[in-house]
Amino acid sequence: MSQQSSYYPELAKEIEAPEGPLGVLLPGLGAVATTFIAGSLLLKKGLAKPYGSLTQMQRIRLGKRTNPKFPLIKDFVPLAKLKDFIFAGWDIYKDNCYETALKSGVLPQNQIAKISKELAGIHPLSAVFDKKYVRNLDGSNIKKFKTKMDAAQELIKDIENFKKKNNLKRAVMVWCGSTEVYMTPLKVHETLESFEQGLKKNSPEIAPSMIYAYASLMTKTPYANGAPNLCLDIPALTELSKKQKVPIAGKDFKTGQTLMKTIVAPGLKARMLGLDGWFSTNILGNRDGEVLDDPGSFKSKEVSKASVLDAILEPELYPELYKEIYHKIRIEYYPPRGDAKEGWDNIDIFGWCGLPMQIKINFLCRDSILAAPVVLDLVLFLDLAQRAGLSGIQEWLSFYFKSPMSRPDLKPEHDLFIQHLKLQNTLRILMGEEVLDHSGLDYYESKEAAIKATGK
Amino acid sequence: MSQQSSYYPELAKEIEAPEGPLGVLLPGLGAVATTFIAGSLLLKKGLAKPYGSLTQMQRIRLGKRTNPKFPLIKDFVPLAKLKDFIFAGWDIYKDNCYETALKSGVLPQNQIAKISKELAGIHPLSAVFDKKYVRNLDGSNIKKFKTKMDAAQELIKDIENFKKKNNLKRAVMVWCGSTEVYMTPLKVHETLESFEQGLKKNSPEIAPSMIYAYASLMTKTPYANGAPNLCLDIPALTELSKKQKVPIAGKDFKTGQTLMKTIVAPGLKARMLGLDGWFSTNILGNRDGEVLDDPGSFKSKEVSKASVLDAILEPELYPELYKEIYHKIRIEYYPPRGDAKEGWDNIDIFGWCGLPMQIKINFLCRDSILAAPVVLDLVLFLDLAQRAGLSGIQEWLSFYFKSPMSRPDLKPEHDLFIQHLKLQNTLRILMGEEVLDHSGLDYYESKEAAIKATGK
Amino acid sequence: MSQQSSYYPELAKEIEAPEGPLGVLLPGLGAVATTFIAGSLLLKKGLAKPYGSLTQMQRIRLGKRTNPKFPLIKDFVPLAKLKDFIFAGWDIYKDNCYETALKSGVLPQNQIAKISKELAGIHPLSAVFDKKYVRNLDGSNIKKFKTKMDAAQELIKDIENFKKKNNLKRAVMVWCGSTEVYMTPLKVHETLESFEQGLKKNSPEIAPSMIYAYASLMTKTPYANGAPNLCLDIPALTELSKKQKVPIAGKDFKTGQTLMKTIVAPGLKARMLGLDGWFSTNILGNRDGEVLDDPGSFKSKEVSKASVLDAILEPELYPELYKEIYHKIRIEYYPPRGDAKEGWDNIDIFGWCGLPMQIKINFLCRDSILAAPVVLDLVLFLDLAQRAGLSGIQEWLSFYFKSPMSRPDLKPEHDLFIQHLKLQNTLRILMGEEVLDHSGLDYYESKEAAIKATGK
Amino acid sequence: MSQQSSYYPELAKEIEAPEGPLGVLLPGLGAVATTFIAGSLLLKKGLAKPYGSLTQMQRIRLGKRTNPKFPLIKDFVPLAKLKDFIFAGWDIYKDNCYETALKSGVLPQNQIAKISKELAGIHPLSAVFDKKYVRNLDGSNIKKFKTKMDAAQELIKDIENFKKKNNLKRAVMVWCGSTEVYMTPLKVHETLESFEQGLKKNSPEIAPSMIYAYASLMTKTPYANGAPNLCLDIPALTELSKKQKVPIAGKDFKTGQTLMKTIVAPGLKARMLGLDGWFSTNILGNRDGEVLDDPGSFKSKEVSKASVLDAILEPELYPELYKEIYHKIRIEYYPPRGDAKEGWDNIDIFGWCGLPMQIKINFLCRDSILAAPVVLDLVLFLDLAQRAGLSGIQEWLSFYFKSPMSRPDLKPEHDLFIQHLKLQNTLRILMGEEVLDHSGLDYYESKEAAIKATGK
Repeated sequence: MSQQSSYYPELAKEIEAPEGPLGVLLPGLGAVATTFIAGSLLLKKGLAKPYGSLTQMQRIRLGKRTNPKFPLIKDFVPLAKLKDFIFAGWDIYKDNCYETALKSGVLPQNQIAKISKELAGIHPLSAVFDKKYVRNLDGSNIKKFKTKMDAAQELIKDIENFKKKNNLKRAVMVWCGSTEVYMTPLKVHETLESFEQGLKKNSPEIAPSMIYAYASLMTKTPYANGAPNLCLDIPALTELSKKQKVPIAGKDFKTGQTLMKTIVAPGLKARMLGLDGWFSTNILGNRDGEVLDDPGSFKSKEVSKASVLDAILEPELYPELYKEIYHKIRIEYYPPRGDAKEGWDNIDIFGWCGLPMQIKINFLCRDSILAAPVVLDLVLFLDLAQRAGLSGIQEWLSFYFKSPMSRPDLKPEHDLFIQHLKLQNTLRILMGEEVLDHSGLDYYESKEAAIKATGK
Repeated sequence: MSQQSSYYPELAKEIEAPEGPLGVLLPGLGAVATTFIAGSLLLKKGLAKPYGSLTQMQRIRLGKRTNPKFPLIKDFVPLAKLKDFIFAGWDIYKDNCYETALKSGVLPQNQIAKISKELAGIHPLSAVFDKKYVRNLDGSNIKKFKTKMDAAQELIKDIENFKKKNNLKRAVMVWCGSTEVYMTPLKVHETLESFEQGLKKNSPEIAPSMIYAYASLMTKTPYANGAPNLCLDIPALTELSKKQKVPIAGKDFKTGQTLMKTIVAPGLKARMLGLDGWFSTNILGNRDGEVLDDPGSFKSKEVSKASVLDAILEPELYPELYKEIYHKIRIEYYPPRGDAKEGWDNIDIFGWCGLPMQIKINFLCRDSILAAPVVLDLVLFLDLAQRAGLSGIQEWLSFYFKSPMSRPDLKPEHDLFIQHLKLQNTLRILMGEEVLDHSGLDYYESKEAAIKATGK
Repeated sequence: MSQQSSYYPELAKEIEAPEGPLGVLLPGLGAVATTFIAGSLLLKKGLAKPYGSLTQMQRIRLGKRTNPKFPLIKDFVPLAKLKDFIFAGWDIYKDNCYETALKSGVLPQNQIAKISKELAGIHPLSAVFDKKYVRNLDGSNIKKFKTKMDAAQELIKDIENFKKKNNLKRAVMVWCGSTEVYMTPLKVHETLESFEQGLKKNSPEIAPSMIYAYASLMTKTPYANGAPNLCLDIPALTELSKKQKVPIAGKDFKTGQTLMKTIVAPGLKARMLGLDGWFSTNILGNRDGEVLDDPGSFKSKEVSKASVLDAILEPELYPELYKEIYHKIRIEYYPPRGDAKEGWDNIDIFGWCGLPMQIKINFLCRDSILAAPVVLDLVLFLDLAQRAGLSGIQEWLSFYFKSPMSRPDLKPEHDLFIQHLKLQNTLRILMGEEVLDHSGLDYYESKEAAIKATGK
Repeated sequence: MSQQSSYYPELAKEIEAPEGPLGVLLPGLGAVATTFIAGSLLLKKGLAKPYGSLTQMQRIRLGKRTNPKFPLIKDFVPLAKLKDFIFAGWDIYKDNCYETALKSGVLPQNQIAKISKELAGIHPLSAVFDKKYVRNLDGSNIKKFKTKMDAAQELIKDIENFKKKNNLKRAVMVWCGSTEVYMTPLKVHETLESFEQGLKKNSPEIAPSMIYAYASLMTKTPYANGAPNLCLDIPALTELSKKQKVPIAGKDFKTGQTLMKTIVAPGLKARMLGLDGWFSTNILGNRDGEVLDDPGSFKSKEVSKASVLDAILEPELYPELYKEIYHKIRIEYYPPRGDAKEGWDNIDIFGWCGLPMQIKINFLCRDSILAAPVVLDLVLFLDLAQRAGLSGIQEWLSFYFKSPMSRPDLKPEHDLFIQHLKLQNTLRILMGEEVLDHSGLDYYESKEAAIKATGK
């Protein structure tokens, strides 16, 4: 057949080999970060499996359905190895990672015990922090600085010291810190120049997470934003990422309830089932829950979570089905739940002749367990992207985020399945392989096909 | 840019215009069929909306994200119009469609009242039925015949009379009848010849649904199989469909719980979350529930439903994640639920370092409401396929079925999102439009892209 | 045997016969009140059954288990008849009860149609209302007055006119209006004198519901408080009820989630299962939901609902089991739910050796359907109480309330089953019958018993 | 006041003091029994709390509400002490209790470790077992015997040896073994004589559990039946219990789903809410689940569980509310659940004017955790009963059973709250204290009351 078609040869890349150690920099060494680190250490020792991680476990189909190959992603694209990871991080508490892993209660004690020494050796650097942006937290491991530009320079120095000390050529930074209060892009965020002015003048519009991102980009370190903070979503920093040729990605790790939402909503839409309302409540009992008990931080999270439905369901195209959705999201601090998290969703749909139906989803999940492999994949894919010469927003990593970044004139993609195909097809393109479009009519409409279709 | 690539010009088709009335033939005039007919009549009069139907409501993206068009599918491909439908059907009960619609209690009485006359005018033809294949039903509107071949000839006569009387050139048949006892393909099913011998010799391996399918294909009427019956899934009938140049599709309408399963399971797999077990129970109170209370019929349904998880999760590729799934399905007759249906799913998953999590889904749904628009779409798409010259198995209609048919040497596709993309890309191909592969790297890796990406 | 014991002959009462019509006065003619009225009218005509009503359907055991009698409560105690009810009410909207019943969407239209004339004839009197106490409502059917004492006099005149016009000797008032902002008893509420001073001086501490209660008591009309408003719970009004010899009861109808809570919590306690936390969320879409979207009104409701667990579980007696309960209650306005209401409860319990377990309850209920028979029973039992010479707080009616009133030095009883036994035993006492204590040892420890116990 | 009334002085008992050690005999040393033993050992050492046990934690109100006392039950009635327990048991597997506790996975390993030595010292005696009665189990620790009477004599010898060896004067036996196939009382069960004949003649109608019960009663050991086996429910054995002056109780420990049912159903009935249907499904993954996968054993369990609703709701008294209940119970073996158990209940109720509502309950429970304290209480209360001179059926222990025993001419009581009151009032009676009837009118209708009611 003639469609040599589904190739994008001009977009294939030469990718540098991932040689030498890779620095993994984590602002925020709480439950998510320590679960990620602990799991990575267990993996290195063969004491755990990397469930939840595409880079470690997923396979990618190459070739036709009649003769497919399914290599592991990690055998298909040149990724760094876990054994080459070197960890560092910042936190407002002085606990080392062993202490934090025990306190956060995510992994069982007997698992943590097996890597206690390594974990205990990771001490948080002092953090750039300001209670104005995260009102419900307090810590003592905090940098003192006069201007925010000074703070940025401190972080840059931290990064450079860490790289020098460990003889690193490459590093990736992933924000695992708390949710800051809600902010919108303002004048100071518009250009790199105005932003740097703001840093020097201590502009209140510049939050700590932005200072980390700035420091990351200035040191040519790829940066991923795991929280709903404004952070990277300002022209000043996307500009800087292009200028520095650094790939970036964000925002807000897609874990429990929103993960389910971006799984279920595309299904409803595919089947043209209408939606009257979607009520989501969450109960959670850890530091996250405490932070989100503050209305300012909650607003950031709420906005990040709320965009999902409209973006997937496209009420502008389907006003009869999705224009009047009542979407309500609640997050409730509930200490008995501990580090576990529980979502309850009530979904009111309607079908043929308008008849109503209901779906209830109760998700007993664990935030850190869902987030840790996301951190791992982002570290590896951002490092890959940098070696492939990609820079700026990496939309193909939308799969991992509640509120994905995209080119400003393009609508972000929230449908988990489109995100997944985008990720896999991007890998295929980078490696010069045929993309999948799942059309498949060619298996039926050709002479060979016709013969096979009868089963003879 | 250079990828004029994602086209399949050789597969584009010239499609005949859908002129004149279209016969809609329904074996089984129960809740599903009458809900479909009633809704179609309400739609004709502008008294209802076709929620749930892709052919009526869904839009299809054409062109790039920067300049997309979103025509309705029905404006994009040449479909028949609802106003041209003429209905007929067979049933073992003598109730006309008005009586059945009232009894089945799906649509509200005041809606049914608006089309009572039209519904009352549709009387079921006497059915080909044998209690051996559906043990919990009994009816009085049943054809008498000596051999199954005689029965087939009776049905062929019914179809021809109906077409002649209504001056029809085209018709489509969709099985809306009950679930028959479980059967597997045997010798008699192997060739058209052996099958026709079997008809003449009253082979017990030939169930009524196969006789309907045979009559349908012999009259060049496309046929869709809405139940988990073996029916079309035998070489004799797929061979006949190719010989007669008739498109076919099946099997088992994808409605409540399995619909949710094919939405959720792909999400878990995309994220590489492991699965320990999936327990599904269903309560339902209508004729369907009664039929499925018979272990023979339940077996057919169970097998149809069970294949879904393995096909989606591919334990052969992911033994660590999906090899040990304990998948249990129960269907319980529970009269208080009436025509409504309710699924409860418990899903035991595991993530990072093996930690367990649970998802519970409670779906308060209505089988007929979910199935009716599927019937509508199948009628229209099979008619389209026939006019486009397609014949045999229409894999691109997998989207609508619990247990989709495919070329014998290809694995059937169960992932709702791949099925959906396959359907839409098939339409694009038929019309000579570019397919979508959602890769999208071109929006970022080109000169224009680079400029836009900074938002300036 | 000798225990003629379980009698309280001195507390038996002579009860006047319920002759003539009974006025039923309802401040607040919204969904609850009109559902109650509509149902009562349907009942009169034999078009509905009084499900949910003890006075109409429940039986009461008299005598020993070996020879029990089970008369209907309404045949056992001398209750007024439904046919003798004459309805009146106040509301801030001018809609008659037919219009309100249609709008509130509780009962099906075809049921309402059967009593449309009677409903349309009930027009709300203009209400005593002040937006300060119910911030999310606005209405136009409102009395103008200079002082709150004037308002009280207006209401008294309304009552007297109604009784005169309908030739009534007896009436009962049941508050079916909205939840007012949270208030606590202050100086002005302490004595009747200070309260009347407050009325004259327009004290802001006197809410409209108190003015209705005052008018009710002044006209010797028994009063029940169906909302969580402070209202009757002030010494001034309990004093007045004793002085006027009028029975009173309250507060806050026990309907959906709290009803379940007072059913389940006693079960946990009976079995000595510990409780870590109880998270309750509610979604509701009607006027009630709108009112409770105001934090002031929500506070009243929250306090009323929160007291339940502590009162039942007695952490002072069981500190190891119930001292550290995290009890969180949310009420969410969610318009797609309409008049229906839905509760989701997550209950974290622990048992033997401290092992945790969880209970989740999802209650798809209808507030007005649960409240209407409560209104009916309160009307009839308060009228009975008055005829029996009882006055002041009727603790035996605790069964109907989320936050029951009791003698100030006694702990209120929240356990539904104790409340139920209290109600039934009170009826037994009033009628001079033996009370039940369910001890039952006498059936085994006597000669006759010994013989029977072997089954011979 | 005058009602010295609520006393039953003639039924008060002189109770022997619980001196010396108490033998605890357990046929069936599986998850329930070892969890009970392990917990008891932890309790002795102060390493656990006896949550779930009335004898250890519950208080009992004595006296009036104005001046109540709340002693612990164990301080109120003369119970044996945990420290005096000496354990023994029979099982078809040879694992000692330490091994079984580890395998069954109920208590955490680190808890079990603290009492490993004591647990390892308890070796099961060889069991009387016959696969015909429990088809899905096989074991090697089984007594060989010619007649069932020989088997009984073996057990009697076991008991006597145990008592002699440990110098015991008192012992209690609690059946913690598996569910046997469904049986109904037949001729052989009618008299002690026919039963003993049957033992000698190896009557197939005599199941192993009956042989244990016979041995227990012959040695004057009180016996409780924790499974739904017919066992004690035959005239021969109730007669024997009276003859030997031994208290007995049964049957089928009330744990997860049925416990919830006997909590919720009384609430619905108290409020006169109608019931259309109740669908209960259970998933469980341990030996219990395996045994109940056999239809014969399932039938026993089903019958035991099914009786609950009718007995509580009394359709004979309330045909309009409860006559047409569709009650369906399913138990599903689902290995991923392990020793945990999960119930899902769907309850279809109706209220005022017949409007339907739904309740869904999802109970994530642990069978052994709920059963263990029941075993403890039964041991202590049966020993108390024996010392108090009570014999035969102990109906006051109904509280602990799914299918409680009662005098043949009396209806058994299933309502958890009536059962609880019965238990507590029985204790009050035994000790000569006033019973509670919760009437409470006396607090309001007397001079003193009148004064207090105003709060002054």
